[in-house]
Amino acid sequence: MDLTRSEAAALLRDMDDVLVLAHENPDGDAVGSVYALALALQAMDKRVRPCLDTLPHTMEGLAEGLSFPDFTPRYIVAVDVSDRKILGVTGAGLARDCRVDLCVDHHVSNTHYAQETCLDASAAAAAEIVYDLVKLLNVPLTRRLADCLYTGVSTDTGCFRYGNTTARSFEIAAELVRAGADIARINKIHFETKTRQYAALEREALANLTLYDDGRCALMTVTHEMIERSGVQETEMQALSALPRQIEGVLTAATLKERDPGEFRVSIRTNENADAQAMASLLGGGGHRAAAGCNAYGTRAEAEAAVLAAMRTVLRDQGLL
Amino acid sequence: MDLTRSEAAALLRDMDDVLVLAHENPDGDAVGSVYALALALQAMDKRVRPCLDTLPHTMEGLAEGLSFPDFTPRYIVAVDVSDRKILGVTGAGLARDCRVDLCVDHHVSNTHYAQETCLDASAAAAAEIVYDLVKLLNVPLTRRLADCLYTGVSTDTGCFRYGNTTARSFEIAAELVRAGADIARINKIHFETKTRQYAALEREALANLTLYDDGRCALMTVTHEMIERSGVQETEMQALSALPRQIEGVLTAATLKERDPGEFRVSIRTNENADAQAMASLLGGGGHRAAAGCNAYGTRAEAEAAVLAAMRTVLRDQGLL
Repeated sequence: MDLTRSEAAALLRDMDDVLVLAHENPDGDAVGSVYALALALQAMDKRVRPCLDTLPHTMEGLAEGLSFPDFTPRYIVAVDVSDRKILGVTGAGLARDCRVDLCVDHHVSNTHYAQETCLDASAAAAAEIVYDLVKLLNVPLTRRLADCLYTGVSTDTGCFRYGNTTARSFEIAAELVRAGADIARINKIHFETKTRQYAALEREALANLTLYDDGRCALMTVTHEMIERSGVQETEMQALSALPRQIEGVLTAATLKERDPGEFRVSIRTNENADAQAMASLLGGGGHRAAAGCNAYGTRAEAEAAVLAAMRTVLRDQGLL
Repeated sequence: MDLTRSEAAALLRDMDDVLVLAHENPDGDAVGSVYALALALQAMDKRVRPCLDTLPHTMEGLAEGLSFPDFTPRYIVAVDVSDRKILGVTGAGLARDCRVDLCVDHHVSNTHYAQETCLDASAAAAAEIVYDLVKLLNVPLTRRLADCLYTGVSTDTGCFRYGNTTARSFEIAAELVRAGADIARINKIHFETKTRQYAALEREALANLTLYDDGRCALMTVTHEMIERSGVQETEMQALSALPRQIEGVLTAATLKERDPGEFRVSIRTNENADAQAMASLLGGGGHRAAAGCNAYGTRAEAEAAVLAAMRTVLRDQGLL
């Protein structure tokens, strides 16, 4: 039985010596939520330490000037972690099978690996749940807390563009602005900035973008050589997958990233109800209706042909081609 | 003396046979605000007609299935129009010096050309003011009204990314979602869709993007030949100006669009307080601190050299180069 937010807040009120963990390769929601929860517990005079595997340089500002004590943890909280397999334990020097006392999450796929779970799959971001916990704990919403929570909500909703955005996301954002969140700066960092390396790779990738079937299918491939030469990190490269689907008329778009020579990670994105999951599953992958993933192998031409064939098969089945 | 929202609502309550106008080349805020106000007055059993010069195809859904009667207008309202010079009168068959009874606007530069003006320069969009008027008029917020108002607020804030976004923008968005606004569809159309023509032009433009001064200055030029060949419309081409500034480390970026052979429209965008207005004014233009515009003339090389020189002069004056 999952905990309500009030029950989770009651648990947190009783805890001390708390370690707060996120998932590996933490994104904006993971970093923002972990820091927000740690700051809230610290404001309640508890010993607490946020512990991430890495802190992406775009979010160093959230941690700047903060200090957290060293102690032997008695209580471990995981935020935004749907599965123990992706629990970020390196930073904390823990084993991945460590006891997790409380998990605060918004993934419908949560595996309930923790002793207690506070799950709300309707929340666009874990930060939305943490926001409610902060309120329930009667912790004043400082600017730093607001910055952390805004980072979580805005990044997980693609700055309020994605389909997961709800009225509640907007309401929380309004409260965070009133509490002093520096949204101009945060938006600029996350939604209006690209590294030079990424910009160059994106340019090269777009030059490779090819449309098929009267513009209904799109393929964009980034080769191993391009990735190596660019020096772009995996996290930043994820933004590429959104590009080919944006072209008007495209029903299904695939971005192929050749991580190792001959091995392509494929992101499939669709419009107009075309079934990305069905396409990915033809190639042994899975995902959601509008966004799915799989692998493809061989030369670039072979991988592209396999992906295009899967897309066409499903589009024909759906009567869309 | 400007009207408060309550005074403007009182005026609107007494009007009938109302024509609602926007500015020429209407954008999302103009279209959304004009239709929202017209729908609100229609819900009050008034004769009203929205009248735009053009309806961009991305916003045809807002007008779909609506009908407005023909009549001789007794009252003319202009929404989101800062200056009579840009009043969209073609659709209405009016002269540009026609009497405008009421102007509802959010531009600080409003010239007070109307008999009465309801101005709030702190509003991120005219649609935010129209939202308040709809509330004051006690008109129920239908889905269609919510779609119109959300289109206005979201497009003028770049989907809540730009610096003009306020707590109020988020609060209004929350209410519009609760009223049934189809934000997934509207966001997709405005923020996740590019025409094939635009995508091709963007790709070509990015291939032309050049960095100078250790990446602090960026220039991107779209030639007359590229524009003609692409067939991209002026409104869609505006999105290009945002791209070069996004590159990390860029302090000042200029996008040159050769509208007529030898005549370049220049958009200057800056980061880190670099003074775009000062740069543009060196070339006879103007604007704001972070976004300004001017013209440049001659061959592409001559125009680029002139713009780069202006950027460097100001950066040096500011101690940024």
